Amino acid sequence: MLILGLDPGIGITGYSFIEQNNEKYSLITSGSIQTDKTAPHPKRLLELQLDLDFLIKKYNPDCASIEQLFFFKNQKTIIPVAQARGVILMTLEKNSIPMYEYTPLVVKQTITGHGRADKSLVKTMVKKFIELDQNIKLDDTIDSVALAICHLQNSRFKEEIK
Amino acid sequence: MLILGLDPGIGITGYSFIEQNNEKYSLITSGSIQTDKTAPHPKRLLELQLDLDFLIKKYNPDCASIEQLFFFKNQKTIIPVAQARGVILMTLEKNSIPMYEYTPLVVKQTITGHGRADKSLVKTMVKKFIELDQNIKLDDTIDSVALAICHLQNSRFKEEIK
Repeated sequence: MLILGLDPGIGITGYSFIEQNNEKYSLITSGSIQTDKTAPHPKRLLELQLDLDFLIKKYNPDCASIEQLFFFKNQKTIIPVAQARGVILMTLEKNSIPMYEYTPLVVKQTITGHGRADKSLVKTMVKKFIELDQNIKLDDTIDSVALAICHLQNSRFKEEIK
Repeated sequence: MLILGLDPGIGITGYSFIEQNNEKYSLITSGSIQTDKTAPHPKRLLELQLDLDFLIKKYNPDCASIEQLFFFKNQKTIIPVAQARGVILMTLEKNSIPMYEYTPLVVKQTITGHGRADKSLVKTMVKKFIELDQNIKLDDTIDSVALAICHLQNSRFKEEIK
């Protein structure tokens, strides 16, 4: 079972592919899709679409776990992030990948036991579940790993995106 | 010069193709892309992508005029609308269509002279610019016509989406 974790953004979308074998999780690859900050949004959205499509076709995941958005969080960025997330959902659907979404609260609770855990605690606890590539530095990539693990840990209760 | 006016939505995206010849505007076609309300959002976003792509390839517009979003308006719907708008911008970019965006305030000001005009005044004034198909009933379709006309009227000041 191969899970694609995704932390959506217009500038940086963190991604990770995590394999589950019985109780064991292994990181296949992870990174970020970064778009040209100086380019207009439509061009950046197309870059994101093409790059994600390439990754999906290359690794062929069984499902994806993606962060749920709330309008009251990050009001300044909600529109560009939601626009990017729309392109991501569409691209997953085009490739017939089932999707599940989790709030940051549920992700943190699942990984650390605390809904208000800070980023460094999330990173520390993610390493209890999986051996991370030492090159992973971006929070967005760590968050995508946390999203994938969150889905694996909650898969008994999973429900597809409505 | 053929303009595509677009009023984005996840359930209904109003569209219109308007031809400008010198000072004269003609409505080539208009309608709405409606997605299945009972389907999950990723599926609806893909429907929107495919339908818009079909329309663009069929009519081959020179540019598009699309509504700008604000987070403080329609907080409940901003995320699904922005997700749909992301898919729309990406699809236009994929087809190399230059895009321009206008706020509802600028559209109303341009069409009626009043930024706070109601929908019925917008509809009445749109008919001063262009002969509408009598079958147009949806506000979203009227709004897409207004967006296209707004762009034509403001084209001296036009600036592409950043």
